[in-house]
Amino acid sequence: MCIVQTQHDDLALETANAYTQYRDALVRSGHLIPTGVPGVYGRGGDFERVITAFDNLVTRAGAELNPTVMRFPPIFNRAHYEQIDHISNFPDLMGSVHTFMGGDKEHRDMLAKFERREDWTNHLTPARVMMTPAICYPLYPSLTGTQLPEGGRRVDLQGFAFRHEPSEDPARMQIFRMREQVRIGDPSTVRSFRDRWIGRARALLSSLGLPAEPAPANDPFFGRGGKLLATNQRRQELKYELVLPICSVERPTALMSFNYHQDHFGEVFGIRTAEGEVAHTACVGFGLERIALALFKTHGCVPSAWPAEVRRRLGL
Amino acid sequence: MCIVQTQHDDLALETANAYTQYRDALVRSGHLIPTGVPGVYGRGGDFERVITAFDNLVTRAGAELNPTVMRFPPIFNRAHYEQIDHISNFPDLMGSVHTFMGGDKEHRDMLAKFERREDWTNHLTPARVMMTPAICYPLYPSLTGTQLPEGGRRVDLQGFAFRHEPSEDPARMQIFRMREQVRIGDPSTVRSFRDRWIGRARALLSSLGLPAEPAPANDPFFGRGGKLLATNQRRQELKYELVLPICSVERPTALMSFNYHQDHFGEVFGIRTAEGEVAHTACVGFGLERIALALFKTHGCVPSAWPAEVRRRLGL
Repeated sequence: MCIVQTQHDDLALETANAYTQYRDALVRSGHLIPTGVPGVYGRGGDFERVITAFDNLVTRAGAELNPTVMRFPPIFNRAHYEQIDHISNFPDLMGSVHTFMGGDKEHRDMLAKFERREDWTNHLTPARVMMTPAICYPLYPSLTGTQLPEGGRRVDLQGFAFRHEPSEDPARMQIFRMREQVRIGDPSTVRSFRDRWIGRARALLSSLGLPAEPAPANDPFFGRGGKLLATNQRRQELKYELVLPICSVERPTALMSFNYHQDHFGEVFGIRTAEGEVAHTACVGFGLERIALALFKTHGCVPSAWPAEVRRRLGL
Repeated sequence: MCIVQTQHDDLALETANAYTQYRDALVRSGHLIPTGVPGVYGRGGDFERVITAFDNLVTRAGAELNPTVMRFPPIFNRAHYEQIDHISNFPDLMGSVHTFMGGDKEHRDMLAKFERREDWTNHLTPARVMMTPAICYPLYPSLTGTQLPEGGRRVDLQGFAFRHEPSEDPARMQIFRMREQVRIGDPSTVRSFRDRWIGRARALLSSLGLPAEPAPANDPFFGRGGKLLATNQRRQELKYELVLPICSVERPTALMSFNYHQDHFGEVFGIRTAEGEVAHTACVGFGLERIALALFKTHGCVPSAWPAEVRRRLGL
């Protein structure tokens, strides 16, 4: 069973227990396949069918907006990474990809260390890529120095993001997929796109039996300096989430986020509107694994036993 | 146009030129989106539709075998990586994921280096993951210490693999998707599964206008010692490919590979057959980006203008 009993009288302990219980239920039913690293899982066939079905539902929900479809891979140009302040704001979440670039002699030295069980990774060199930290990040550099058409652009993205935050919570994975709708244009267009999607996405989740609620939010900025950034982000209402309890009522899970970046990416990558102003950007992100986890938690472990209306909506 | 003119009189130069010309044609038509790193591309909507259509065709082609569907992410447990000899055989292809685990003070030190444009990556620590080097590698450790049911197992995989081999050839990407059919069992079952798939896959590609030919092959083992391993692999007929010219007749591209691992993974991860013997494994891999590139090269840039029979087979 994916629906596990939780008690609500001793919440601090129960939240941790609820994570473990739900994760174990997902593993027993084959939806998640442990890899030995917290937050890194294989996915079973039924889990993937639910992800694909929901992904297709988002396509239908956004089709009238006629976005340009692009898909970026899980790795990201290091030079672009170094332009976007991630190293200042979220260094603890980064994934830097390193490789071996030596010859036979250096290889022998590295293998000798490996065989002595010493740290062999200091023989490695940074590759020209980082793990993709957020799936819309590769989009903006691809528009470097461009001027948008009249009315700006709409782009549809999907892909894997990496965040180094090992956790027992099955909804906090280190590698997970986001589906995103991005708007690039003038500030009012971008902001109203984001705000309209809050209602549209809420209705979409609600139609699947997931009554997610909007909540102002902030990103997990690093360190002492990060507190001020988080406060500013909230004060300016730059980030909203749609949250729903999965394992804990007190600590509901964000299934989606709605982010207004102001002119951050437009400025860094020299993207201009048709009118010649610095472009503003916003993204609307569906957390695909989290939404699947919420569906399994709400409706049970076996998709064929889900309510008929939910199955019909998803085409399952 | 995706079909570019190539001359066949000066082959050494023409191969390099053909790579660049084909890549540029793919970029102009929006199928590949440059990221500034050789071999790392975003994919356009039509390119992705072709990948999805072909992926669905493989599902139908293999459905009668009723495989267990599993999907592993682009990152892979470092402890498992260290068990499989990749560091000996293919160190130059590896991707090791590193992250920042310090506090505020260490962060200030790293940022100071970053701002002075010095190498800041020596402040990083290896994370517990590597890039997934081949998409069936995560499967075998997930079966550690198990005994297979009677008749063994069939598993269906799809996912991203990373190989650090920057190239101008659009068919040699650093990050790409493989669809795989894996067989685990006794040697004769496993070997005949692999061999039967050579014919089945050849017919499948041929039905799409891709007359790929089988060829014995070897993996690109590293260094001087690697030459012997490659020779042995060919002598034992452990690896076949289905190859087709994309940019060069003399250097055709492998669209698929068929690999018999003997008892390598069964031994390392303690996987046993129902009869108690060490399990043998084989994998059949479809290179999804390469197959899409071959389709665009053969039939042209615009899928809606492809031959009716090809579109019908793919459901495009």
